[in-house]
Amino acid sequence: MRKILLLNGPNLNMLGTREKAIYGQDTLQQIEHEVQAFGSSLGYQIDCFQSNHEGELIDQIHQAQDMYCGIVFNPAAYTHTSIALHDAIKAIHIPVLEVHLSNVHTREAFRQISYTAPACEGQIVGLGKQGYLLGVQALHNILREG
Amino acid sequence: MRKILLLNGPNLNMLGTREKAIYGQDTLQQIEHEVQAFGSSLGYQIDCFQSNHEGELIDQIHQAQDMYCGIVFNPAAYTHTSIALHDAIKAIHIPVLEVHLSNVHTREAFRQISYTAPACEGQIVGLGKQGYLLGVQALHNILREG
Amino acid sequence: MRKILLLNGPNLNMLGTREKAIYGQDTLQQIEHEVQAFGSSLGYQIDCFQSNHEGELIDQIHQAQDMYCGIVFNPAAYTHTSIALHDAIKAIHIPVLEVHLSNVHTREAFRQISYTAPACEGQIVGLGKQGYLLGVQALHNILREG
Amino acid sequence: MRKILLLNGPNLNMLGTREKAIYGQDTLQQIEHEVQAFGSSLGYQIDCFQSNHEGELIDQIHQAQDMYCGIVFNPAAYTHTSIALHDAIKAIHIPVLEVHLSNVHTREAFRQISYTAPACEGQIVGLGKQGYLLGVQALHNILREG
Amino acid sequence: MRKILLLNGPNLNMLGTREKAIYGQDTLQQIEHEVQAFGSSLGYQIDCFQSNHEGELIDQIHQAQDMYCGIVFNPAAYTHTSIALHDAIKAIHIPVLEVHLSNVHTREAFRQISYTAPACEGQIVGLGKQGYLLGVQALHNILREG
Amino acid sequence: MRKILLLNGPNLNMLGTREKAIYGQDTLQQIEHEVQAFGSSLGYQIDCFQSNHEGELIDQIHQAQDMYCGIVFNPAAYTHTSIALHDAIKAIHIPVLEVHLSNVHTREAFRQISYTAPACEGQIVGLGKQGYLLGVQALHNILREG
Amino acid sequence: MRKILLLNGPNLNMLGTREKAIYGQDTLQQIEHEVQAFGSSLGYQIDCFQSNHEGELIDQIHQAQDMYCGIVFNPAAYTHTSIALHDAIKAIHIPVLEVHLSNVHTREAFRQISYTAPACEGQIVGLGKQGYLLGVQALHNILREG
Amino acid sequence: MRKILLLNGPNLNMLGTREKAIYGQDTLQQIEHEVQAFGSSLGYQIDCFQSNHEGELIDQIHQAQDMYCGIVFNPAAYTHTSIALHDAIKAIHIPVLEVHLSNVHTREAFRQISYTAPACEGQIVGLGKQGYLLGVQALHNILREG
Amino acid sequence: MRKILLLNGPNLNMLGTREKAIYGQDTLQQIEHEVQAFGSSLGYQIDCFQSNHEGELIDQIHQAQDMYCGIVFNPAAYTHTSIALHDAIKAIHIPVLEVHLSNVHTREAFRQISYTAPACEGQIVGLGKQGYLLGVQALHNILREG
Amino acid sequence: MRKILLLNGPNLNMLGTREKAIYGQDTLQQIEHEVQAFGSSLGYQIDCFQSNHEGELIDQIHQAQDMYCGIVFNPAAYTHTSIALHDAIKAIHIPVLEVHLSNVHTREAFRQISYTAPACEGQIVGLGKQGYLLGVQALHNILREG
Amino acid sequence: MRKILLLNGPNLNMLGTREKAIYGQDTLQQIEHEVQAFGSSLGYQIDCFQSNHEGELIDQIHQAQDMYCGIVFNPAAYTHTSIALHDAIKAIHIPVLEVHLSNVHTREAFRQISYTAPACEGQIVGLGKQGYLLGVQALHNILREG
Amino acid sequence: MRKILLLNGPNLNMLGTREKAIYGQDTLQQIEHEVQAFGSSLGYQIDCFQSNHEGELIDQIHQAQDMYCGIVFNPAAYTHTSIALHDAIKAIHIPVLEVHLSNVHTREAFRQISYTAPACEGQIVGLGKQGYLLGVQALHNILREG
Repeated sequence: MRKILLLNGPNLNMLGTREKAIYGQDTLQQIEHEVQAFGSSLGYQIDCFQSNHEGELIDQIHQAQDMYCGIVFNPAAYTHTSIALHDAIKAIHIPVLEVHLSNVHTREAFRQISYTAPACEGQIVGLGKQGYLLGVQALHNILREG
Repeated sequence: MRKILLLNGPNLNMLGTREKAIYGQDTLQQIEHEVQAFGSSLGYQIDCFQSNHEGELIDQIHQAQDMYCGIVFNPAAYTHTSIALHDAIKAIHIPVLEVHLSNVHTREAFRQISYTAPACEGQIVGLGKQGYLLGVQALHNILREG
Repeated sequence: MRKILLLNGPNLNMLGTREKAIYGQDTLQQIEHEVQAFGSSLGYQIDCFQSNHEGELIDQIHQAQDMYCGIVFNPAAYTHTSIALHDAIKAIHIPVLEVHLSNVHTREAFRQISYTAPACEGQIVGLGKQGYLLGVQALHNILREG
Repeated sequence: MRKILLLNGPNLNMLGTREKAIYGQDTLQQIEHEVQAFGSSLGYQIDCFQSNHEGELIDQIHQAQDMYCGIVFNPAAYTHTSIALHDAIKAIHIPVLEVHLSNVHTREAFRQISYTAPACEGQIVGLGKQGYLLGVQALHNILREG
Repeated sequence: MRKILLLNGPNLNMLGTREKAIYGQDTLQQIEHEVQAFGSSLGYQIDCFQSNHEGELIDQIHQAQDMYCGIVFNPAAYTHTSIALHDAIKAIHIPVLEVHLSNVHTREAFRQISYTAPACEGQIVGLGKQGYLLGVQALHNILREG
Repeated sequence: MRKILLLNGPNLNMLGTREKAIYGQDTLQQIEHEVQAFGSSLGYQIDCFQSNHEGELIDQIHQAQDMYCGIVFNPAAYTHTSIALHDAIKAIHIPVLEVHLSNVHTREAFRQISYTAPACEGQIVGLGKQGYLLGVQALHNILREG
Repeated sequence: MRKILLLNGPNLNMLGTREKAIYGQDTLQQIEHEVQAFGSSLGYQIDCFQSNHEGELIDQIHQAQDMYCGIVFNPAAYTHTSIALHDAIKAIHIPVLEVHLSNVHTREAFRQISYTAPACEGQIVGLGKQGYLLGVQALHNILREG
Repeated sequence: MRKILLLNGPNLNMLGTREKAIYGQDTLQQIEHEVQAFGSSLGYQIDCFQSNHEGELIDQIHQAQDMYCGIVFNPAAYTHTSIALHDAIKAIHIPVLEVHLSNVHTREAFRQISYTAPACEGQIVGLGKQGYLLGVQALHNILREG
Repeated sequence: MRKILLLNGPNLNMLGTREKAIYGQDTLQQIEHEVQAFGSSLGYQIDCFQSNHEGELIDQIHQAQDMYCGIVFNPAAYTHTSIALHDAIKAIHIPVLEVHLSNVHTREAFRQISYTAPACEGQIVGLGKQGYLLGVQALHNILREG
Repeated sequence: MRKILLLNGPNLNMLGTREKAIYGQDTLQQIEHEVQAFGSSLGYQIDCFQSNHEGELIDQIHQAQDMYCGIVFNPAAYTHTSIALHDAIKAIHIPVLEVHLSNVHTREAFRQISYTAPACEGQIVGLGKQGYLLGVQALHNILREG
Repeated sequence: MRKILLLNGPNLNMLGTREKAIYGQDTLQQIEHEVQAFGSSLGYQIDCFQSNHEGELIDQIHQAQDMYCGIVFNPAAYTHTSIALHDAIKAIHIPVLEVHLSNVHTREAFRQISYTAPACEGQIVGLGKQGYLLGVQALHNILREG
Repeated sequence: MRKILLLNGPNLNMLGTREKAIYGQDTLQQIEHEVQAFGSSLGYQIDCFQSNHEGELIDQIHQAQDMYCGIVFNPAAYTHTSIALHDAIKAIHIPVLEVHLSNVHTREAFRQISYTAPACEGQIVGLGKQGYLLGVQALHNILREG
């Protein structure tokens, strides 16, 4: 069975308690279960990893290359500050898809810059947890065509 | 049967002949057929409209409110220059989803600004024609939940 | 009887339904009637034209020169993006007065720039539909003095 | 009888001698008389105050709250540099209307920024001394509707 | 007989009446006749089209591909604001030459940016109506060498 | 008995009536009494001065040098515009402590710059009237250590 | 007994050896003891944690919510670069107070921006180790009033 | 006997005590005496006025027109922030010469902008108290030639 | 016989060896011969001068005034950095035409600024060596009309 | 035997697989062996450490002070974003030399800023793995002279 | 007899013919004679040197150190672009005084930056040829005091 | 015997007298001797050329192509202002290595930009005269590998 990595960045472990008006009511665990169920329906095992550590996310991306056929990645706040994550994605050869729960375009100016997006296949923004499902769908389409 | 408007902005009528390395091989008509077939599978009639005229796109958005349950919109170059389209989307009450074929984040600096995105529900970037299908899927999810 | 053109730009046809907290409850038609009544009391026929098309607004300004003694103009979103409208106003010899319904100074940064204002006689901002009446009054004063 | 304060900022005491090509031939006293006559016709007593001192203008705004039903204010050069006047206007509860004699949009870049405008009801620009009369008219309309 | 399109953007229909100190005394029709006479001497039929509508200019560029061997284009004010025209020129495969009547480098800061120039073969600036003749000459040279 | 000057800048005389959501319910007089009581408990007489005039604040700072062992200073709006106050603080040899009632970091962009802070010992921001008490405490610590 | 977390960011473990002219002579351990003694006098147990790892600081902030009634936080260099810490503070519901030992306003331009301050209650800057004591005092005041 | 006004702006009353490394050892009074002696040798009475109040400096400039044949003006910190002083100088018809004691070009970035210089005849920078003498000399030359 | 100066700036002596993809295959000598032949056909003697020294180019421009009826000038890299060349062109009274071989608008950001263009009659960009011929043609037209 | 630390930042563990056109064919291990051999020839033991974690790099720099006589450091992506690494280098007293494999000056704009360089002795850029050898040589020279 | 160098930069050899409205009617030679006469009256021999070559100006400044007691320098256009002249002035130990004939503050934005001023003793701006005399006077004062 | 050119830009002839705290005690001649001795040990003849003239440096670079196998180049102040030197380096086919004596990253903002670096192989910064030796070593390595 083919595997996809669902990678979540800083503070996303706080989903469900953190600023619900922006991020919604579901916990990360609930969302991960939905993504796994959806992935399963397309024939993928979805492994989930969340970290608040930029370095751990980089390590994970490096290791993903040999184990996964693609990554659905929400870099959260590191989107806007991490050139190291940009380089990590560039350093591997499997497709990576950037997802943001909220519509970053309606928020603070410092959330308008994405260092990671130019290194990714594409970006899905503002669609809440559905964004993750669409991300898996998009990876599936890319892999099927590739 | 519920209806969705697939709205395409300037120069997208040239798909298939225009800069294929960036925009792909399919013509707009071929893409519209695929989107209609997919929409149909979810129970939607997809009406298609393309214009190179900013004013016609605004007119179309205004009129859409009474006829459609949502819009999948690729504003193309107007994304980066049109406050009038921003205002047009704000002026209606049905959800609008912004789609870009290419990954604008890897292109010229002037394509990094989106005036339309803050007025939309969300944004799907860089996934080629699949982005339109995911856009219809996303609208479907929003409408089902709303 | 002398004539004044009341020219309204993009999305103003949506007045009364569009973002009422910002733009007020009246429809454009209601406002136009009030302006016509007021103009009439000063001895002017007020002709009204609204368009979402930048090109049509330019055409209208060019043609106005031979038919009207002045223009009260709300360029709406095109205020902030249209150098072509700036040039159109510069190209004619009758006075043009810029009016904005809302106080643009309290809104998004991209509404702080006006390309049209330097080409106009003056500007009336933030006074709702009364701004149009004051605009007609101002034109009347300019014409009387001129 | 209701009262309106006509408040003029720095260098406006020099009207009639100062840069006439920009500001016109009338002295401040002549303009004040015209405004008082017009105010009187609408049923208002217009009190006039001019100062070159930012602090005195702030003091005057604070005290106006209990004595006037509104202020017509030309902050002149302080428009572009005074956050303290912004705060003073925000600190009171009567409507304030910003007026500029010249069309600041055609002048130096440093006159394009207004710190006071976001704190005011609205702004009338470029209409010479008629701008003050329109300002009184506008206040009258606001008060009648309020 | 080979054909060249002479394409003129917004407000150029006002030549001869509009700001003569900047743009000269000739009407657009007079200039078009001179260009046609000159083109004829080189063996080209020159078709002329002017529009104030960005969308019409884009349509015209798209259609030109099958009918003309090149375009001499004065995008006027749209030069500085239209990414859509940039994309339109990129979308076709015949050479386009940008011409400006006035020396834009001596004018407002907002006329210093050209979105269209990077998509064109080259640019001729500040030479009045002679710029159009030189543009036809330049196209002729490019076509002869190509 | 040693003396400290509590110096308050423009519009702070309006505390208690002015934008209460931002600045709190207490009047300046109430706050001054609390600060005096607290200062007294540490062995200081607290003299209070408020002015809306930049020049008076400068005069006061100059004169403070011979009368006070330190200043707790809320420059309010002048924080963001006054280089003259920066120079005034630099010109004296007693410690000055900058205090802001509200958290300026969550407010308008123009409140993010402090001209006075680099000339002061330190800055206390966002703690309401308690900020003044902490300011007196901080001065006391500095003086004890000095 | 109520508990407060004293959280110190990168390089603060080097206090006492690191750039003493800027940061003072005391080691972090000495400062922590003073803060604990002072906290104890107000009835609080102060737990101390220092890390050079952005991720560990985020983890600690998340966990603090259930164990502490407030945090005194010196984010050091991360103040100026970490949106992730901004989000971490926003994600919890106990008050956080930002403290800086040195007066950052007199230092490099890149230290003038604080990403964390808008997410905190307030900020105490430039008062050396006394800033931590004032921070505990401020938290105590906030908690007593809350 | 012809008269020249020596006008000094904020904090210059502190000369001799204030930041001597930058501004020198002399008090303002000592400098004024030297300037008066020098002026006298050229046949001018030099009147001296210093104020920390922007408004008083403006008042003084307005009144100078009828009493003095020129002004030697050190606007100090107001140089960099006061558009009102720019306008005041523009409003009168006698020559004004800007003088700075220190070389502002070697100091903070915010001292690199001069709002007053474009309104003055010229500027003398960085020559200490000699700058005032040269200023009087320069005015004398201008008046002799005028 | 009337004379035109063909003036070439830094590194243009390397044409034919230097970055051929950008600048073409011809040596400067070959291009100069073609320009001379073309000039001759219009009745002009073309003198050629190339230098890598900004000062020599300035000297040449000054001396040209008495010997030539116009200059075709490719300032190359000095276009983007030399205010001294701007002033040199302003200092003489014969027409100067700026020519660039490559389309600078498609190259590095630092090539987008032209200090020389505002001092010239006009500019011809991106047409390779033909640009020089068109430049001579344009000068001829200007001289004939003048 | 004296020891030097060879410290490598994020993504450098991917050398040999990552973007070979930019970073070359060698793995990090191969490079480290070459550096160790070269160091050995100069009488130094070279210890090697690589991490993707900003915090671990900071920890390592702190600990290096007592064990090494200098550091050759390639901060990779953290060069452009980490003020914390700047502070870490400032906090120790042994020389640190910054090395970059690729010529960062030919790459993205965000790689043009170095936060670490001002804290280092010097910088060697664009010389591939030879840069590390030169870095060791440079440290040797500094230590010999010191 | 002590010697002063009067050094003039690019295009100043054109004085008297060049843009007289800005630079005046006198030729450089006439001005040099006046300066020499004035210098002589103070006991100085004034040697004059003008060059359009940045390198020659640098050479001259280097050599001046052993021959002159000071330099009066008008760097003209190089003021705004030459860091090399900044460094040349820094490299010598005799005082240099910057002089500009016109008031650069009223001219193009690119003339507002001075690279040379921070390396000079001071600056005299906008006083025409009198500025050179004042410059000699100022040097004389500096040398007498030094 | 193979030859390397050691090329030094403006003001470097002043080494040993110029700002010694920044540039060290050695004269340029002493440094050149050391570089020649080191080059000789690697089998290279080192020719030395210094000029304060941008044009001479360009000429020298052009001529170097046929005589030298590489250039070690310290462009000094021209680093930050000369696009012409960038183009000169691009125009030749031998490797060029940029060297700076001081650590430019700790100096003025205007020294942070390098126009020459993107055209060079690499850059060695802040290592004093040793930087030249390392530059020769680096060229030797590049030539050996090439």
